[in-house]
Amino acid sequence: MPNIFEKGLDRHAANYHSLSPLSFIERAATVYPSRVAIVHGDQQQSWSETYRRCRQLASALHMNGIGIGDTVAVMLPNIPAMVEAHFGVPMVGAVLNTLNTRLDAESLAFMLEHGEAKVVIVDREFSILMKSALSRAKCKPLVIEVDDPMYVGSGQNLGGSNYEEFLSSGDKDYAWKMPSDEWQAICLNYTSGTTGNPKGVVYHHRGAYLNAVSNILEWDMEKHPVYLWTLPMFHCNGWCFPWTVAARAGVNVCLRRVEAQHILSLIRTHKVSHYCGAPIVHSLLLSAPDELKVGINHRVKAMVAGAAPPAAMIEGMEKMGFDITHVYGLTEVYGPAAVCVKHDEWASVDISERARLNARQGVRYHLQQAVTVMDPETMTPVPADGETIGEIMFAGNIMMKGYLKNESATQEAFAGGWFHTGDLAVVYPDGYIKIKDRSKDIIISGGENISSIEVEDVLYRHPAVMYAAVVAMPDPKWGETPCAFIELKTGASITSDEIISHCKKHLAGFKVPRAVMFGEVPKTSTGKIQKFTLRQQIKSVDALQ
Amino acid sequence: MPNIFEKGLDRHAANYHSLSPLSFIERAATVYPSRVAIVHGDQQQSWSETYRRCRQLASALHMNGIGIGDTVAVMLPNIPAMVEAHFGVPMVGAVLNTLNTRLDAESLAFMLEHGEAKVVIVDREFSILMKSALSRAKCKPLVIEVDDPMYVGSGQNLGGSNYEEFLSSGDKDYAWKMPSDEWQAICLNYTSGTTGNPKGVVYHHRGAYLNAVSNILEWDMEKHPVYLWTLPMFHCNGWCFPWTVAARAGVNVCLRRVEAQHILSLIRTHKVSHYCGAPIVHSLLLSAPDELKVGINHRVKAMVAGAAPPAAMIEGMEKMGFDITHVYGLTEVYGPAAVCVKHDEWASVDISERARLNARQGVRYHLQQAVTVMDPETMTPVPADGETIGEIMFAGNIMMKGYLKNESATQEAFAGGWFHTGDLAVVYPDGYIKIKDRSKDIIISGGENISSIEVEDVLYRHPAVMYAAVVAMPDPKWGETPCAFIELKTGASITSDEIISHCKKHLAGFKVPRAVMFGEVPKTSTGKIQKFTLRQQIKSVDALQ
Repeated sequence: MPNIFEKGLDRHAANYHSLSPLSFIERAATVYPSRVAIVHGDQQQSWSETYRRCRQLASALHMNGIGIGDTVAVMLPNIPAMVEAHFGVPMVGAVLNTLNTRLDAESLAFMLEHGEAKVVIVDREFSILMKSALSRAKCKPLVIEVDDPMYVGSGQNLGGSNYEEFLSSGDKDYAWKMPSDEWQAICLNYTSGTTGNPKGVVYHHRGAYLNAVSNILEWDMEKHPVYLWTLPMFHCNGWCFPWTVAARAGVNVCLRRVEAQHILSLIRTHKVSHYCGAPIVHSLLLSAPDELKVGINHRVKAMVAGAAPPAAMIEGMEKMGFDITHVYGLTEVYGPAAVCVKHDEWASVDISERARLNARQGVRYHLQQAVTVMDPETMTPVPADGETIGEIMFAGNIMMKGYLKNESATQEAFAGGWFHTGDLAVVYPDGYIKIKDRSKDIIISGGENISSIEVEDVLYRHPAVMYAAVVAMPDPKWGETPCAFIELKTGASITSDEIISHCKKHLAGFKVPRAVMFGEVPKTSTGKIQKFTLRQQIKSVDALQ
Repeated sequence: MPNIFEKGLDRHAANYHSLSPLSFIERAATVYPSRVAIVHGDQQQSWSETYRRCRQLASALHMNGIGIGDTVAVMLPNIPAMVEAHFGVPMVGAVLNTLNTRLDAESLAFMLEHGEAKVVIVDREFSILMKSALSRAKCKPLVIEVDDPMYVGSGQNLGGSNYEEFLSSGDKDYAWKMPSDEWQAICLNYTSGTTGNPKGVVYHHRGAYLNAVSNILEWDMEKHPVYLWTLPMFHCNGWCFPWTVAARAGVNVCLRRVEAQHILSLIRTHKVSHYCGAPIVHSLLLSAPDELKVGINHRVKAMVAGAAPPAAMIEGMEKMGFDITHVYGLTEVYGPAAVCVKHDEWASVDISERARLNARQGVRYHLQQAVTVMDPETMTPVPADGETIGEIMFAGNIMMKGYLKNESATQEAFAGGWFHTGDLAVVYPDGYIKIKDRSKDIIISGGENISSIEVEDVLYRHPAVMYAAVVAMPDPKWGETPCAFIELKTGASITSDEIISHCKKHLAGFKVPRAVMFGEVPKTSTGKIQKFTLRQQIKSVDALQ
């Protein structure tokens, strides 16, 4: 029998609306119409203008038959059209598929086909690559070409519509609709799996809305931030920041390419208040010549994820006067889903201890429901002893619907009612989690587990080291031993013995690398080190795969 | 046929959780266990302790048979038990009914009966009143008595359980559950209707969660605010601030009674960063002797609602160094649901113009979906001309489920898919709404509409005026004319002629009051002026009702 609070108190148009980040741009444009929304070179665009352009994009898509559940793929750098796509595409109920511009034609063709793209919006810089992808794909999407005045390189006309003309064909007062169901898909993001075909992660409006707000909460982000687009919007939709910036009526400072000099110049000129990036972005700024940093005297908040930042980086950023927040997440959880929340008491411990505390993956993100570390066999949480290793798992609203057209992978990822990250971690007594390794990255030597990250942290502390990676090397006696790959800073020089003696100072004997290789460390397009390649190089692949 | 994003991508335990403000206290207690959550006199309580006590309350309620859809009424000032009730009660799925401590026994009895209260938690200060209410009510709730050490007045033992003993009987590790449906009722708030029985406004978890976050967004509220409880938690659950403070892991500074000296002392001692209140709270602080304000040098953010603040108040607060935000709402929309968002450009206009801009009710609150002004007959928006009067209407998630056991009132309030506020307003070209009057407060004189608020604004600008109210007075020639009721500041003196000549300076001739009455202006327990009483006094009731 229903209780008294369940009778005659139903949901309806007046008291129940779908949560969608589209509501953010409507408010920004209404309340702050003349505030700057986008800066791109000399070009500036207000919120009312941006909203108008997004409605025109939606209208033009609608006129071309695009509607609920249709995929619109985009191959764009962080330019105004990319921001606009984050609103204009879902305004017609379509699903935005941001393609990684660093991929090869074959992978792109797979995504266009698998995602059943009806439209593709492409920047001229990637026209030749897109042409090659389209020639391989069976689908024939409508092509829309962006001719960004900030792009001065070569390109090719694909015979599609020009983006500006396409927009002009749309109605600037187009009466777009909020999704009738907040569970409706808003985006499709392919993960670069280590093996096999990429998986298509599907986001819903509810999750995008909640993570956009979580970003504000974590950063105590005041109204009107100036956000610099160092993080590609094709990574987890820029961790939902296109919607966060709209929710705060802030400024999107666009950026075609990650270059230290240009970034530092934008930070100075526009008084950039916030930016995000993988560790590589921050190290780039860290290692830039001091003269490029002159005149940057305001406070900048930076967010880092993608890999635990080594202690040296956290130290360096602090010294530079940037306030760095360490977050952790994956494509499946819309970017950041855990954060290493700082505490006042940390300010009074020495910087290396503070860096150690900060390097942890931390606790659940604000509006995420739960993060835990569990034994994946028993699905019971590991003790908070800082030692017992389990798998990091998430549950909550900031979570994909699942993998597109891949029910088995979806079920496997969600087994037991939790999303399995594949990352191995411990829980400290304060409840903070710390990744010890990716599932495949634990080195087992003589029955002892060695975390390659722990060894790498030590290597990064050496002043000559630019990049370091440690992988398992087959060993007849111990099973595996750690092998270090090192890329030196420009002009630095050092011997294997010096590296090993440095490690011995900071590590238990069995954890010290038995071999050290010098040279360029292979990285993915996103700056993650390709350990798979390194393992192949030392023939440990079979042992680990 | 479902599209590709609707197949095999369902909701389940890993990717869909109810939105509930209960998740905020769990995070605060986990991430910031030792931070202060509550200050009450010399007593301090951390977030982990508060969370433990809330779980104990939930557990004890559960052991007494309380569960989903049961009403737990509380008759409490702003003390720790009141904060705890906002978490402990919904943790068992029960509905919190905060009773207005200024009501009479008869009204309270109606609420206990109508809300079917199973439990009532009462502070000793209100024990005699509650005894009288209970003797009139047919229901026999379990009585729990709070004996607050900060209360030194008289009271009576009602023979119920002692609150602390009741808590002790509960399990401190009680495994409470999040609501399985975010539409589940969380609170019941009775509105003091002008006529007839009060209506029971039912809140849901989803709305409480979203408004709690909206409060953060409006105030750019950083982590760890120090929030002073000048606003009674029995008004719209303190505008959802008990949950907001938990979401920010802030400090609740409790307050039994609104007194200028005590409030100013708490602001100084605890470095209070935020407080809310009706205009009367702010005028109390404004008019306090300067010596009480010595030593308050930090920035304080204040929120005002309940009536448009007169220009003089906005000016005064600014001069005092308090940053005041004007919000507008009603019980049905969980407190604030519109806000007069300030703009940078306003800083350069003179203070009276700035005050005029600030006195408007503004735009939709952050996570509220929509506010509009419509002609209630045609349900079409009025033009944004600053002149055409319509009725303010809201739609969105921060909206009641409806009125408890009152389907006709619910349907009437939600007619046409919008919540009808009964407040009459115009829309300015910048989209900001401005209340011209409550439906019944428009004075129609010689076919011209006169807003009583406009006349009151002018009266408040006179330095001798403490309170002013303008109502319609029957007039044989003009139908109605404005009549002003004025309460002077202590020690001030002024004649009717001086008031009228002051008004003539600032108002069109037909808007100037034809009569001025001096004396105490009758106010409700919440500080709203009782115009109904004034109308009775000048025999205009029949003409207006």
